[in-house]
Amino acid sequence: MADHFGDRLFEAVKSKNSPLVVGIDPVYGRLPAQIRSQDGMNDSRNIDCVVDAFFEYSTKLMKIVAPHVPAVKLNVAYFERYFWEGMECYYSLIDEAHALGLEVIGDVKRGDIGHTCLAYADAHIKEPANMTAADAITINGFAGADGILPFADSANDNGKGIFVWVRASNPSAGRLQDAATIDGVPMYEILADITAEIANQPKRTGAHGYCNVGMVVGGTTPEYTARLRAKYPNVWFLVPGFGSQGGSATDCVRFCKADGTGALINSSRGIIYAYEKDEYKNQFGDDWQKCVEQAVIDANEVLRQAMDQ
Amino acid sequence: MADHFGDRLFEAVKSKNSPLVVGIDPVYGRLPAQIRSQDGMNDSRNIDCVVDAFFEYSTKLMKIVAPHVPAVKLNVAYFERYFWEGMECYYSLIDEAHALGLEVIGDVKRGDIGHTCLAYADAHIKEPANMTAADAITINGFAGADGILPFADSANDNGKGIFVWVRASNPSAGRLQDAATIDGVPMYEILADITAEIANQPKRTGAHGYCNVGMVVGGTTPEYTARLRAKYPNVWFLVPGFGSQGGSATDCVRFCKADGTGALINSSRGIIYAYEKDEYKNQFGDDWQKCVEQAVIDANEVLRQAMDQ
Repeated sequence: MADHFGDRLFEAVKSKNSPLVVGIDPVYGRLPAQIRSQDGMNDSRNIDCVVDAFFEYSTKLMKIVAPHVPAVKLNVAYFERYFWEGMECYYSLIDEAHALGLEVIGDVKRGDIGHTCLAYADAHIKEPANMTAADAITINGFAGADGILPFADSANDNGKGIFVWVRASNPSAGRLQDAATIDGVPMYEILADITAEIANQPKRTGAHGYCNVGMVVGGTTPEYTARLRAKYPNVWFLVPGFGSQGGSATDCVRFCKADGTGALINSSRGIIYAYEKDEYKNQFGDDWQKCVEQAVIDANEVLRQAMDQ
Repeated sequence: MADHFGDRLFEAVKSKNSPLVVGIDPVYGRLPAQIRSQDGMNDSRNIDCVVDAFFEYSTKLMKIVAPHVPAVKLNVAYFERYFWEGMECYYSLIDEAHALGLEVIGDVKRGDIGHTCLAYADAHIKEPANMTAADAITINGFAGADGILPFADSANDNGKGIFVWVRASNPSAGRLQDAATIDGVPMYEILADITAEIANQPKRTGAHGYCNVGMVVGGTTPEYTARLRAKYPNVWFLVPGFGSQGGSATDCVRFCKADGTGALINSSRGIIYAYEKDEYKNQFGDDWQKCVEQAVIDANEVLRQAMDQ
C-alpha cells in the first residue's frame, strides 16, 4: 500500500472505478429494527447498548460497501455524543474499515492554533497503540496558515492526509464565505489559496501528482467548482452534499478530472438509510443489507453516467 | 445557582472579583516531577499512567485556583490525544471543577452544520448520565448561522452557553479574518454580527443583561477591542492571549466593562506551569503548588491594576 495518502487515494479510486465515499453518521433510532432488537443493543437510554449497536451496524455496512467504494467517512460527532464509549467505537471502526481495505476519512473538522492543532493531529492521524488511525481528517482552517500547517506536517510525518473545509454546502455559509473582499476575491477563495500554498510546499506531493492536503468544498455551488478544479490541479476535493443535501451528480463530478480521480463524492443518508426508502423497501422488503447494497450500486451508476456526459 | 449561563458567569466574576480564567492544557512532560514520579503515573508511554497523572495534577491545580478565579477552561485537545481514556478524564474533570464551585468552559472549538452541530452539542453541553457537562463551550462558526444556531438552541435547552470563535490571536489569522469586504467590513466582524444577531434573539438574555452566546476574541488586537465592546454590550467575551501569547493586561481588560464583568481573560501556561519559572522557583523551591498559587494571585493583581488605570 502506498505510503503517501494522495497515492493511496488515487489507487483506491482507480481500483474501485468510483469516486464515491459512504458517510457513516449513525443515529440509534434510524438503525435497522433487526439490530435494535438484538439483546444488548435494544435500549436507547443505555450508552453501552447504543454503542454496541453502532459497531454492529457500521461493520455490516462497511462490509457491504467495501467492494464498491474507495473510502468511508466517519462523522465523529455521532460517536462523540456518546462520550468516551462512543469514541472507543469510532476508533474501533477505523480498524474494521482498514481490515476491509477501505480508506478512512475522519470527519472531525478540528481546528485551533499551534500546539492545540498538534494535539488534535495526535488524536486523529497518528496511530494509537495497537490500532490504526484514519487515513485523513477534515479540518477547519479558520485560523489561517498557523491553524493548517501543524496538521499538514503531522500528515507528512504519519503518511496521512488532511482536507481543509473551504466552502460549506449549507445555505447560510455564503454570507461569510462568499463575502467579496475589496480585491474582488471571495473569502472562501482566500482560504483555498492559503490551503493551496501549503499543499504545494515541498514533500507534500505523491507519485501520482496529488498532495496530501486537500479541500472540502460543497457540491451545491457548481458555479465555483470549475474554477477551483482548474486552479488547484493537484488537490483532492472532498465533496459533501451529493444526494440528500441537494447536490446533483452532474454538479459533484465537475470536481473529478477526466480520468475519474481528483475528487471524493460523499453520500451519507442516501445510502446508509436506504432501507427507509420505498424504492428499496418495495424491492427487498426488510432486508436492509440488500437495500444498502443496491443504493451504493445505484449511486455509483448515477455518478458514472454524469461523468460520461 | 443561576439557571442562565450569563447570570452564573456574572455572579462568579463578581464573587471572585476577577475576570481571570485558568486554561488547563496538560502536557505530560511538563507536569511536576512529584506527580510524574508517583506509582501508576510514571510511564509516559502508558496511556493509563498519563491520564491518571493528568487527573491528579488537574484536580490539585483546580483546588489551588478555585478560591481566586470564577472559571477554568479545559482544552479538550490535550485530553483527546489520549483517545477515549483521555476523554473520560476530560469529563471527570468537569465534575471535579463543579464540586469546587468553578464554572467550566470546554474549549472544544467544534463546528459543522445542522445535525452534526446538534450531535456535538449533545456531546459537550448536555449532561451525560451521572455526570455534569461544561457550562459553556467554544465553537467554530465558520459555516455561519446554520452552524451556530443548533449550539445556541442546545445552550438554551440545557442552561449552558457558547462562545463563537470570532477573531483568533495568532499572527496568520489576519489574512483571512481581517480581509476587508467591498463594504469595508472585515470578515471577523461579519462573523461577529452573525453571532450577535443570534445572541440577541428572544430568550437568550439573562437577568443581568448578558446573553448565553458570547465571542472568543484574541487579546492581541487591541485596536478592535473597544469597537467590539461598544457594539455588543450584552455579550461575554472570552479573551485568550493574556500572558504567554503576548496580550498585555491593558489590552485584555479593554473587554471588561467598568463593573469588571463582560469578559473572561484566559491565562494557561503562565499559571499552570508557573513552577518552571525562576521567579517562582527562587521563592518556593520545588513546591509547585505554592508557585501556581502565587502566579494566579499575581495575575489577578496585574489585571486589577490594569482595570484601575
